[in-house]
Amino acid sequence: MSIATERTISETRSVVRPDVVGEQAYGIVRDLYPICRSITGAGVRESLRQLQGIVPLTIQQVASGTPVLDWHIPDEWNIAEAWIQTTDGTRLVDFRNHNLHVVGYSQPIRKRIPRDELLRHLHSLPEHPDWIPYRTGYYAHSWGFCVPHALVEQLTAPEYDVCIDATLAPGQLNYGEYLVRGRTDNEVLISCHVCHPSLCNDNLSAIALAALLARELSALDLRLSYRFLFVPGTIGAIAWLAQNESAVRRLRHGLVLTCLGDAGGFTYKRSRRGATTTDRLVEHVLAHAGEPFSVRDFTPYGYDERQYCSPGFDLPVGRLSRSCHGEFPEYHTSADNLDFVTADALGGAYALLLQIVEAFESNRSYYNLLPKGEPQLGRRGLFGAVGGTDRAAHELALLWVLNQSDGQHSLLDIAVRADLPLPVVTAAARLLEQQLLLAPCDC
Amino acid sequence: MSIATERTISETRSVVRPDVVGEQAYGIVRDLYPICRSITGAGVRESLRQLQGIVPLTIQQVASGTPVLDWHIPDEWNIAEAWIQTTDGTRLVDFRNHNLHVVGYSQPIRKRIPRDELLRHLHSLPEHPDWIPYRTGYYAHSWGFCVPHALVEQLTAPEYDVCIDATLAPGQLNYGEYLVRGRTDNEVLISCHVCHPSLCNDNLSAIALAALLARELSALDLRLSYRFLFVPGTIGAIAWLAQNESAVRRLRHGLVLTCLGDAGGFTYKRSRRGATTTDRLVEHVLAHAGEPFSVRDFTPYGYDERQYCSPGFDLPVGRLSRSCHGEFPEYHTSADNLDFVTADALGGAYALLLQIVEAFESNRSYYNLLPKGEPQLGRRGLFGAVGGTDRAAHELALLWVLNQSDGQHSLLDIAVRADLPLPVVTAAARLLEQQLLLAPCDC
Amino acid sequence: MSIATERTISETRSVVRPDVVGEQAYGIVRDLYPICRSITGAGVRESLRQLQGIVPLTIQQVASGTPVLDWHIPDEWNIAEAWIQTTDGTRLVDFRNHNLHVVGYSQPIRKRIPRDELLRHLHSLPEHPDWIPYRTGYYAHSWGFCVPHALVEQLTAPEYDVCIDATLAPGQLNYGEYLVRGRTDNEVLISCHVCHPSLCNDNLSAIALAALLARELSALDLRLSYRFLFVPGTIGAIAWLAQNESAVRRLRHGLVLTCLGDAGGFTYKRSRRGATTTDRLVEHVLAHAGEPFSVRDFTPYGYDERQYCSPGFDLPVGRLSRSCHGEFPEYHTSADNLDFVTADALGGAYALLLQIVEAFESNRSYYNLLPKGEPQLGRRGLFGAVGGTDRAAHELALLWVLNQSDGQHSLLDIAVRADLPLPVVTAAARLLEQQLLLAPCDC
Repeated sequence: MSIATERTISETRSVVRPDVVGEQAYGIVRDLYPICRSITGAGVRESLRQLQGIVPLTIQQVASGTPVLDWHIPDEWNIAEAWIQTTDGTRLVDFRNHNLHVVGYSQPIRKRIPRDELLRHLHSLPEHPDWIPYRTGYYAHSWGFCVPHALVEQLTAPEYDVCIDATLAPGQLNYGEYLVRGRTDNEVLISCHVCHPSLCNDNLSAIALAALLARELSALDLRLSYRFLFVPGTIGAIAWLAQNESAVRRLRHGLVLTCLGDAGGFTYKRSRRGATTTDRLVEHVLAHAGEPFSVRDFTPYGYDERQYCSPGFDLPVGRLSRSCHGEFPEYHTSADNLDFVTADALGGAYALLLQIVEAFESNRSYYNLLPKGEPQLGRRGLFGAVGGTDRAAHELALLWVLNQSDGQHSLLDIAVRADLPLPVVTAAARLLEQQLLLAPCDC
Repeated sequence: MSIATERTISETRSVVRPDVVGEQAYGIVRDLYPICRSITGAGVRESLRQLQGIVPLTIQQVASGTPVLDWHIPDEWNIAEAWIQTTDGTRLVDFRNHNLHVVGYSQPIRKRIPRDELLRHLHSLPEHPDWIPYRTGYYAHSWGFCVPHALVEQLTAPEYDVCIDATLAPGQLNYGEYLVRGRTDNEVLISCHVCHPSLCNDNLSAIALAALLARELSALDLRLSYRFLFVPGTIGAIAWLAQNESAVRRLRHGLVLTCLGDAGGFTYKRSRRGATTTDRLVEHVLAHAGEPFSVRDFTPYGYDERQYCSPGFDLPVGRLSRSCHGEFPEYHTSADNLDFVTADALGGAYALLLQIVEAFESNRSYYNLLPKGEPQLGRRGLFGAVGGTDRAAHELALLWVLNQSDGQHSLLDIAVRADLPLPVVTAAARLLEQQLLLAPCDC
Repeated sequence: MSIATERTISETRSVVRPDVVGEQAYGIVRDLYPICRSITGAGVRESLRQLQGIVPLTIQQVASGTPVLDWHIPDEWNIAEAWIQTTDGTRLVDFRNHNLHVVGYSQPIRKRIPRDELLRHLHSLPEHPDWIPYRTGYYAHSWGFCVPHALVEQLTAPEYDVCIDATLAPGQLNYGEYLVRGRTDNEVLISCHVCHPSLCNDNLSAIALAALLARELSALDLRLSYRFLFVPGTIGAIAWLAQNESAVRRLRHGLVLTCLGDAGGFTYKRSRRGATTTDRLVEHVLAHAGEPFSVRDFTPYGYDERQYCSPGFDLPVGRLSRSCHGEFPEYHTSADNLDFVTADALGGAYALLLQIVEAFESNRSYYNLLPKGEPQLGRRGLFGAVGGTDRAAHELALLWVLNQSDGQHSLLDIAVRADLPLPVVTAAARLLEQQLLLAPCDC
């Protein structure tokens, strides 16, 4: 049996070098950046194929038109080229220069149109005249371009030629899925959205970290199973939920990962229920991680936690990011580029993810097998022999674990009450279990 | 069926002009001010008769001696005249000038008495030498006068003549009752005390507003039924409770109204249970009303909430006032007069009462009929088509209502959690119900 | 029957003079100070014998080797003499001068040893060079001396003679036990540790107060029974718990008493459960006692609350002290002497203990026998007859007790909600019970 020879997450965490992993993650971001992704189409498929070089994920496919919950899988959108030209053929805007230039799911068009009509189809950011905004219209049956506002102000000619050479036709929705099997069927969901085109923080940062984490975990001896999803936002999560109700029932924890490469502190958004073990574990890890962080309550607006936390599922899924969508100026603009994310920030986020996984793995409940009075720890070599002085922290952890292990308190509960980091409490529990003073009361 | 043609409380609230209603309320206060009320007698009957000009309330009667809970209806007290004179016939105090001059329920007397004996029967306020205090002795079997302290200091003669031409004899206790029937038998109690003589804020202000509110509601399409009580304090509420146990069981909300005409901010006193839906709705309305307010916990001292919140009833009844009894100097003195209350303050209180009634009417719980994942709102025209930008407040309200409507959360719960005013959340629920995405789970 | 002639705790509390009791307690501390106590041996027996002069406690004995929970009663340790001498016979350290000089449970030794070896067996306090520390090694099978650090620095000779004339041999563990029987079998545990040698605050202060309290209570008419334990720390509490499971089940409240003679404010350490009635009563008494105090949560480190609050017992036992162990510099040193504790501090602690016992005695739950509406208190002479003015505090207490006495709220609950001292609420309940308006719903 291989388990004895595999490393635990705790052992792994102590040897992983965040700076090295940060550089690897940055490399993945850089490689995926040029690809034009949307909720369907060749870009997502190509991105998932590149991720298969890191971890052997499965590329799932769901045919256009398939009903999924209240939705239907839309037609597949693909784009070859797109531009705006002056009538004398000078190209003002070209999709080849930046894939944000075209509103996602734009319908094809090739036409000379008056300036006024063109303007109605342009999106720009007056407050950031050099940036290109990111806009989509999956169900809008329209077309549009996103351009720097500086350009809009130069459009003075009466007519322009526009071309969007796109197809919207039956095809498929794709998403990536990878399951790391642990010793139990109880699952942890790690989900990130893969539908955004050339935007680095949102969400190549999370895609890269999820892939590297999946690879790392696949080599470990784990108690829980870990399911990684690389899904197009909303429709992808809905498609997975529609087809995986049995996996849903095995879910013990879950995280939606987004925006993990910028310079901001960490943000944890609680699940709908607000105080699930997932929420409490992540908050405990953040509180002891020594980095700036904030925690916010659930709202039904955001990323795919909207779907996982819809009332019919109500899963223990929170969202982890650094800065939050809509709260940094570069959000959903061309400024969310390769300069905006750093290997340092990615490496720090990876280190935090390992701590969270370690917390998921170690949080169990135990019974004190000698609950009446304190067991004599000195006799067992667990306690200093000389009385009359104060006790060290690891001795306090032993006392806390014994005192609270009545089957009603998890190691997390104990760590919170004792104000000790979970790993210290977990180490104490391991010692006591070895001495037959403690037995787990869950699996 | 007339319901379709009747206005709802929300429609009414948007057209009511508080300044106009404030003037009407002030007019009622002015008309009722001269009447000498007590817990029984002609003054209460005459006041109720005048209120019948506004709303067709029933004047209930309970005979003296009738046992009600732990009490008996007392004899009826009526007073014709009362004065204090010097022995040469100079009238120093005359009931005709101010009905506060006589201690309520004083026994009849006509006698020349020594100065010392007179002084033992006088009540005055040294700190406000020109004001007349208000005192009663319903069960004291004594007599007394209330006078300006300035007068007390001038009483230097050895003897005075006093006269109280009052009767205390078997009769009846009267109170006013008016029920506005809604679509359900679930009731809201609006109760105010009518036993105080010429005191404007306490409690003609509340009497006038309750009468006008009863008239308003009687023309509306309402979900709940509204029972208005105009009762003598303590004994009137006890008499009603003793005789209406079945109505008590239908009670969903209740408010005791007092002191609503002064310049102070609003004060809400919670019910005994402290977090009933009544309490939470009123506090939510106050928090969004944009006017100064404070909330305080229940105490067993005050007005008729003492009876409604006694442990054998323990009703969800709070108390709404502006300034609180005992906390403004004019309280229970002749300074609580027509100058102390204003049409403005009365109108503002009326507007608040309409908001509270609207909250009572609209707070329901719903089931999301498509609880798995988010329903596709765009397809139903409920959501903007262009993605990539932040959502407006009314779209957030839609998401909140869908996310929380699992039958466990009322619209109030949702409004509080979403930090949105209840009417915004209610409007979202109405839209979703029209789209068959939501169904009520209560009645 | 004698009950009618015995005083209640409330009557006693009003006549006890804390200054007088403080002097008595100080006298006991002074008498017990010279005795060398440990967890077993002649010193504990002699101390308990002296306490029998105050209260006729039973001296229990458990033979060495007896299994108690996870422990065994250790051999008995007795010491005749001990010293360190220079090789020319100059005595540097002598047990006769201070019994802290020898590490508790040191094994016998009589030998000339090199300086280096001696130093490894010396304990001292560099930061307090004139103080002798207190150290024990019950299960260390070693020996050691505790000395002023100033002395350590003078040990420059190559060899010294050391002698510890001690015996460690089968004998017994002793503890004192005294039960004051009340009208019910429900018990209150008062426990203090008696194993420390010449240390005044820790714990002669608590021993003296417990003995005096036991004597006081034995003369009173009490509802609850009070069990006083004078036990060697840890092993004594474990021995008692092992042999008294039936008494444990009758326990309603409990206090571990330590360090009650210093100048600090009071400290209450909550039980493991944290909000037992014991915790809430003691905290309420402290909040109204008018002296500085602090409350802290349970931790599994401290005195015998560790055993009483182990998960298999989980008793409602808190700990009362003035300063806390380990938080004053004199703790566990020779500076915890007769100058460190005062009659004043002891007297103040005694007064507080009487208040706590009064709270234990008086906290009951009642049913309002006329729960619908307010009973007419005026008719029963319980309420002032003149209306229109505010009510005095004792009238408010009557209203609060009536309003809250639904069998769900204890007098403590009522006192906390009404923000009144428990004795005021208790007096109101007594009046209402006499008027047949209230009946107890517990025993």
